[in-house]
Amino acid sequence: MMAHKFINEIGPGETIDDIYMVKEPVLRSTTRGDFYIAMFLCDRSGRLNGRMWQATETAYKSLPKPGFVHIQGRSELYQNNLQIIVNNISVVDASKVCIEDFLARTDKDTKQMFKEVKEIVGRIKNPHLKTLVGEFLTDGELMEKFCKCPAAMKMHHDCLGGLLEHTHNMLRIAVAVLPFYPKVQVDLVLAGIFLHDIGKTEELSYDMAFSYTDSGQLIGHVVKGLLMVNKKSDALAAKGTTIDESVLDALGHIILSHHGEYEFGSPKLPATAEAFMVYYIDDLDAKISQVTAAIDNELGDSNWTAWKNALQTRLYRKRIEE
Amino acid sequence: MMAHKFINEIGPGETIDDIYMVKEPVLRSTTRGDFYIAMFLCDRSGRLNGRMWQATETAYKSLPKPGFVHIQGRSELYQNNLQIIVNNISVVDASKVCIEDFLARTDKDTKQMFKEVKEIVGRIKNPHLKTLVGEFLTDGELMEKFCKCPAAMKMHHDCLGGLLEHTHNMLRIAVAVLPFYPKVQVDLVLAGIFLHDIGKTEELSYDMAFSYTDSGQLIGHVVKGLLMVNKKSDALAAKGTTIDESVLDALGHIILSHHGEYEFGSPKLPATAEAFMVYYIDDLDAKISQVTAAIDNELGDSNWTAWKNALQTRLYRKRIEE
Amino acid sequence: MMAHKFINEIGPGETIDDIYMVKEPVLRSTTRGDFYIAMFLCDRSGRLNGRMWQATETAYKSLPKPGFVHIQGRSELYQNNLQIIVNNISVVDASKVCIEDFLARTDKDTKQMFKEVKEIVGRIKNPHLKTLVGEFLTDGELMEKFCKCPAAMKMHHDCLGGLLEHTHNMLRIAVAVLPFYPKVQVDLVLAGIFLHDIGKTEELSYDMAFSYTDSGQLIGHVVKGLLMVNKKSDALAAKGTTIDESVLDALGHIILSHHGEYEFGSPKLPATAEAFMVYYIDDLDAKISQVTAAIDNELGDSNWTAWKNALQTRLYRKRIEE
Amino acid sequence: MMAHKFINEIGPGETIDDIYMVKEPVLRSTTRGDFYIAMFLCDRSGRLNGRMWQATETAYKSLPKPGFVHIQGRSELYQNNLQIIVNNISVVDASKVCIEDFLARTDKDTKQMFKEVKEIVGRIKNPHLKTLVGEFLTDGELMEKFCKCPAAMKMHHDCLGGLLEHTHNMLRIAVAVLPFYPKVQVDLVLAGIFLHDIGKTEELSYDMAFSYTDSGQLIGHVVKGLLMVNKKSDALAAKGTTIDESVLDALGHIILSHHGEYEFGSPKLPATAEAFMVYYIDDLDAKISQVTAAIDNELGDSNWTAWKNALQTRLYRKRIEE
Amino acid sequence: MMAHKFINEIGPGETIDDIYMVKEPVLRSTTRGDFYIAMFLCDRSGRLNGRMWQATETAYKSLPKPGFVHIQGRSELYQNNLQIIVNNISVVDASKVCIEDFLARTDKDTKQMFKEVKEIVGRIKNPHLKTLVGEFLTDGELMEKFCKCPAAMKMHHDCLGGLLEHTHNMLRIAVAVLPFYPKVQVDLVLAGIFLHDIGKTEELSYDMAFSYTDSGQLIGHVVKGLLMVNKKSDALAAKGTTIDESVLDALGHIILSHHGEYEFGSPKLPATAEAFMVYYIDDLDAKISQVTAAIDNELGDSNWTAWKNALQTRLYRKRIEE
Amino acid sequence: MMAHKFINEIGPGETIDDIYMVKEPVLRSTTRGDFYIAMFLCDRSGRLNGRMWQATETAYKSLPKPGFVHIQGRSELYQNNLQIIVNNISVVDASKVCIEDFLARTDKDTKQMFKEVKEIVGRIKNPHLKTLVGEFLTDGELMEKFCKCPAAMKMHHDCLGGLLEHTHNMLRIAVAVLPFYPKVQVDLVLAGIFLHDIGKTEELSYDMAFSYTDSGQLIGHVVKGLLMVNKKSDALAAKGTTIDESVLDALGHIILSHHGEYEFGSPKLPATAEAFMVYYIDDLDAKISQVTAAIDNELGDSNWTAWKNALQTRLYRKRIEE
Repeated sequence: MMAHKFINEIGPGETIDDIYMVKEPVLRSTTRGDFYIAMFLCDRSGRLNGRMWQATETAYKSLPKPGFVHIQGRSELYQNNLQIIVNNISVVDASKVCIEDFLARTDKDTKQMFKEVKEIVGRIKNPHLKTLVGEFLTDGELMEKFCKCPAAMKMHHDCLGGLLEHTHNMLRIAVAVLPFYPKVQVDLVLAGIFLHDIGKTEELSYDMAFSYTDSGQLIGHVVKGLLMVNKKSDALAAKGTTIDESVLDALGHIILSHHGEYEFGSPKLPATAEAFMVYYIDDLDAKISQVTAAIDNELGDSNWTAWKNALQTRLYRKRIEE
Repeated sequence: MMAHKFINEIGPGETIDDIYMVKEPVLRSTTRGDFYIAMFLCDRSGRLNGRMWQATETAYKSLPKPGFVHIQGRSELYQNNLQIIVNNISVVDASKVCIEDFLARTDKDTKQMFKEVKEIVGRIKNPHLKTLVGEFLTDGELMEKFCKCPAAMKMHHDCLGGLLEHTHNMLRIAVAVLPFYPKVQVDLVLAGIFLHDIGKTEELSYDMAFSYTDSGQLIGHVVKGLLMVNKKSDALAAKGTTIDESVLDALGHIILSHHGEYEFGSPKLPATAEAFMVYYIDDLDAKISQVTAAIDNELGDSNWTAWKNALQTRLYRKRIEE
Repeated sequence: MMAHKFINEIGPGETIDDIYMVKEPVLRSTTRGDFYIAMFLCDRSGRLNGRMWQATETAYKSLPKPGFVHIQGRSELYQNNLQIIVNNISVVDASKVCIEDFLARTDKDTKQMFKEVKEIVGRIKNPHLKTLVGEFLTDGELMEKFCKCPAAMKMHHDCLGGLLEHTHNMLRIAVAVLPFYPKVQVDLVLAGIFLHDIGKTEELSYDMAFSYTDSGQLIGHVVKGLLMVNKKSDALAAKGTTIDESVLDALGHIILSHHGEYEFGSPKLPATAEAFMVYYIDDLDAKISQVTAAIDNELGDSNWTAWKNALQTRLYRKRIEE
Repeated sequence: MMAHKFINEIGPGETIDDIYMVKEPVLRSTTRGDFYIAMFLCDRSGRLNGRMWQATETAYKSLPKPGFVHIQGRSELYQNNLQIIVNNISVVDASKVCIEDFLARTDKDTKQMFKEVKEIVGRIKNPHLKTLVGEFLTDGELMEKFCKCPAAMKMHHDCLGGLLEHTHNMLRIAVAVLPFYPKVQVDLVLAGIFLHDIGKTEELSYDMAFSYTDSGQLIGHVVKGLLMVNKKSDALAAKGTTIDESVLDALGHIILSHHGEYEFGSPKLPATAEAFMVYYIDDLDAKISQVTAAIDNELGDSNWTAWKNALQTRLYRKRIEE
Repeated sequence: MMAHKFINEIGPGETIDDIYMVKEPVLRSTTRGDFYIAMFLCDRSGRLNGRMWQATETAYKSLPKPGFVHIQGRSELYQNNLQIIVNNISVVDASKVCIEDFLARTDKDTKQMFKEVKEIVGRIKNPHLKTLVGEFLTDGELMEKFCKCPAAMKMHHDCLGGLLEHTHNMLRIAVAVLPFYPKVQVDLVLAGIFLHDIGKTEELSYDMAFSYTDSGQLIGHVVKGLLMVNKKSDALAAKGTTIDESVLDALGHIILSHHGEYEFGSPKLPATAEAFMVYYIDDLDAKISQVTAAIDNELGDSNWTAWKNALQTRLYRKRIEE
Repeated sequence: MMAHKFINEIGPGETIDDIYMVKEPVLRSTTRGDFYIAMFLCDRSGRLNGRMWQATETAYKSLPKPGFVHIQGRSELYQNNLQIIVNNISVVDASKVCIEDFLARTDKDTKQMFKEVKEIVGRIKNPHLKTLVGEFLTDGELMEKFCKCPAAMKMHHDCLGGLLEHTHNMLRIAVAVLPFYPKVQVDLVLAGIFLHDIGKTEELSYDMAFSYTDSGQLIGHVVKGLLMVNKKSDALAAKGTTIDESVLDALGHIILSHHGEYEFGSPKLPATAEAFMVYYIDDLDAKISQVTAAIDNELGDSNWTAWKNALQTRLYRKRIEE
């Protein structure tokens, strides 16, 4: 199979014969009354306007909104903007598509990261937490999602595998930092980190693009995570293994409070040393990742990035002499 | 059985022979080296200092901290403050105590209110919501708590039966107001009101005094309510009845967002007309109840109450000529 | 008289011969040095670009900015946008125009609503409030404005008759809810609702479009309402009827505090049960109306509306199975 | 008449025969069943506990709560606190009392200040503002209150004559500063300063102590000031002199917005250069007066005052070498 | 030398032969593959698109980004927007350019203002402050910057000489106002005003346009001002003159706290009467200047300016009858 | 030398002959006219009331306020509170006192910690930072303060050696965490952590008690730290070694922004990856230390601590089964 021609690699006057995602197709008529379809053609590198002239209403109706399509056509400049003139368009099943062409993917090795995650949470000794975490690890379908899900829609780790990468980072930091705080309970911190964002697997959808599920928007990953922990605990109880209520509450509290402030959607503020630990490690990894990515992704050679609203500053990226 | 002598009815020089709650007993020694016990003696009308002279460490250790005790002794003025000199003290089992002497109780008829609550939520037609609400109504143990639990620790309806009174009020208001908003879905609003504070039954403890449970403080009634709805739904599923996921989400969203603002512990802001309706009716009933109670409870005859921090104002209580 | 051709009903290539509102006309010159007039042509359904070629400065100067004009011309597509080529344009007096074509109007029956408003406030028994409210009801000119004024520039009830519709809704809710709160003084609530937004009649102008008057922006409807109440009271005093000062203050306080928070322009926070009642009913009706309208007005078939900044959320509009 | 013996000048074991204000008198009984009256005895220098033994219910009922009384008795130390043993107590009419003994008074010359105020506002040339201001100046009863009223309950200029002193200061600052801003309209600024706090004369009561009137708390001096301006304008209209509406609005806007922020009770934010000028001069004079008074009033010789909550800091009062 | 032809004076079809600032030049290719340069051409009156057809990569690389260029070409209308067709472009050295054509300049006399500044701070009597201020006044290079620097990037006094004009205004206000507050230490206020924004000379760059220096963004003018004061003090110490530490701290505190609130970048809140004085005079001059400039600069004849986000209002600019 | 008898170890009826700190001594007279001195007697374990009867004014004047004194006397219970009756009191020079009896000290080994600090910052390779840090390390007097100073007045590490302990912790965390973020510049983070709170050595005084210096309150440790860095850089320049300006700015920015938010006194928000790193590690160590200390220090056996205002929660301290 031929390599995908990325949107940001297309120049004017090229022949196009590849799969793209079509978004927001609309049927319009020209001043002469002919129909044409205007659309966006996208992949993870960007998007272009597409125009299909002499289109029919049937052709329009057949298009997914959004979805994958095979495009044959040609690129051209129109008023100094590149666009694609579409001659043929046909729907492509998502299973035939290399999803990495359309969604960014972590550049780390997910198998290796997941192996390390399992190794670290494998150190948990408390039998209740050990059993509960085991119930998650042996849920193959969920772990597959866990390894594939992004950590966020934007801001940080917004890529396939981002949730795994973020969780992996946090666990490694916890392992490095916990020895300096001997009074903080290791098992709760490790289990809390492993599960703090597990609700993202139900909050986010990432088949063609990153988006929120309806349920995700109505309930949110913070509470969804707690619900998933309770379901696993109920499933264990049905199999005869009872997870202690106070362990469940202490773990649940970490999940509920890990955003650290009410205004970020935590219904509870951290009230245990372990909850504070998870909150700060989460924030540290998220912000440092966001900042270094923003510095990397900035175009041009200015010493300063554009204004970053979430950080309320521009970022300075000139390095000291090395 | 003789009527309880309330703390705020005791004058100086009276003989005391009654049950009170003892709080914060401490063993102290006089300058001469004799032991005595200092304690508070309380009921729902107030509290007084108690002193038991010539006490022993054994007597001290036998006391609940806090708990119910039978007191024999005498009231006296000491430096212009009333106190009780205790001659005999013996522990009383909570089951022998008339709890209403110690905790305020709604002055409405709880049986009648609960009957009306059942009648109103009985109007729900949507089969998913009807089944789910039915599962709660037939949980006798839970409904008993629902009828006994306060609506809050303080602020509004902080009395036995307060949760029922508040829910009952809200349902009646909804029935009165919904006809003016035909696009708002009645069934969701009624089910949402019935269950919006159901988590309070697990968040609050109210056997001897109003307090939070550990689990209540760690998780909170907002999320606990959602967990309870999910448990009931799982129980129904185990019995072969599936509650539609999107109905669960819409109802869950109402529960999660009913505080209306992040800073009041809602992890989600209202995003449906029904969620807004429950939020506003909850706020209306809570605030009007709080304001009218604050006006009623103010001592003296000033036109203004003391400063109310939660409302950021004093309240004016002079009525216009009637 | 022929029905108005609404802007959003015009297709390409149609002959135009109708009245529209002209906004922001500007005189420009082409690259060849000829003058033309660019303008917007509007009615309540939307607006289009208009172009009048071979225009003169005299023609330009004769145009109202904004105002009503009779247009003869033709619609055409230009760069995929519809525009109107104007051949003739002549000014039309506002009195000849059907204002409902240009400003949205409540779809409720204003006569019926006003009748019900009068019936409800007619129940007021307190002689001071009864007299004062009567002085407003018998001010024909003001009541005409009251029935025609919008309730807001945007957000909720932003239509002719919106103030009446909002006040009517609030009064009906008050009548439904007040029986549950016997300590709240009915007369003050009813008079307070009737007059809470009366200052809008002086704050807003709504002859051709909804806008603020200079005086409205400098003083605001909250304080203007209080001034109007004082003027009526002074007028009554001049006629020999004295309104009790403490009744005036209690009513004035409701008007001043009905936005409930300083940041929304209330110079006083609610400090009476009645002021809280009016504030909450106002907020309930405004928000539920805003939410249901936003859900109705959303185009497309997504389960979610666009982001609503005033509510800090998108709205979910999928209904549960009915 | 003998000079008043101030509370903070009384030592132990002195004979007392003077007028004080009695506050919060309560009738109590001793352990032996005898009645006595506990009370506070106050003047502007402080307050002491008073005890009248062998009191009767009749004597208690005759006491004002609060009010002026002639006390005969003796001072003594009780548990290291000074108190006054009252032998005789009789009510004194307020007219017989030198109010300055009980309320702090500005140490500036009020006659001179008022003369200068009149001189400065006499420079107003705009005929509407000149007439309107004249209507205030010729209202003798109001001007008497204006010269006597405090500027605030606490914070700054909380003394008899404080409103005059504050207004006088502001007018002198305006006269000094306006020449640097030639585009700012002098007449509006002078009239705005003169009347910005005129509502304080109705908001505050200061016969025996500084307190708020009911009406003051319900409506507030900001809006009361505007009402007073409108009443004067109506009175002028009744006499045949019309004040231009837009002048009234511009002046009214200054009064309404002079607190500068919603959270300080301004229902409008400054929107004219003149409103900004009055707001800043008001804030400057209030804050500098508050800071210098706080530094002066601090006891002890520490370089720092106690924490000042309204300023969110302690104040440093060591002066640089002079 | 011929007068500069300002951007906002250019009409269509004119010959252009003048110096402009070129900004954001980009090299593009047409659909036919030819290169052209798109750029902005600017001076202080505005900016226009420029197009240079048949450009070469060499020509593009030679352009400053941004910088001054001599342009020969012609203006034309393209899609109703004016643009400049560039035939010749050559780089011009900044030293050959009249900077006032490109950056707004105060319309006050800078020499006169600086003379008055020196006269006012010359009144300082405290020997420590006198010496320290003198060290600044005799730093010719710094004083040149002080007289040229803007007071801000936007908001107020955003012009060459703006810092001087603002400081001059503040000093004159202080001189006028200080006599009303005899307890405020004159010398500290005068020195504090003179130096409060001196860090702007290092924070802002203003050779071709107003912008921040890297160092300015990283450290900020508030702290930079304090650093400059310490450097001067160290320099004096090296010369044998010691500035008292407590005088340095009191002056430094004024500089650090002169924004008055943490959120505006003051690391300390005002804690001395002198710091409050400088803060308020700074705010007064900045805001009145900003408001009067915003009113002056508003186009059209509406009574209201556009919405001013920093002031959270539109401004009313109709003047009362004069 | 005999071990110090700590305040919280004294029982009633003991003979006292030891050194304590006297605070707030006052001279009072009894009802009989005799003088006595009331005072607090303190060490780091708590404080008690002291009474010296038959005192003279001379004795009173000789007392430090506060300071160290040798006390001879006896403990007794008065109204159930322990107090010390002082027979002899004599002033003790601070140099004769074991300061650790009066101020808490870190329980870590300060020599070992400082050795590790030097080892870690010794890894810095960038020559500018290496030289600058070296200038601090070789300032013996400053390093002695650095090892002795508390990290804060309260909240976290409020003990002798606290600044060293906190800095040591942060450096170890940085060393552990930096490998996961290869783009973050190690040298800047290490130097930034080493110097982020160095200004505390000038902000805090800790000879007899922890307090702020005048200069510390006026300028603050954040800015003082930057001033110290600049002084060291100037000293190096005087010796012929120039520290690069951009390195100074990058390091200075870390110091200025390390509180992360304006409201916590940072005049700049973090704008580099390194500044974010220092901010988060600082916050992590401070909060975890604060939380674990609060849990440790809580008396009683409740599962919850008292309300912690700075954290807006009570803390849960029950540990899961281990």
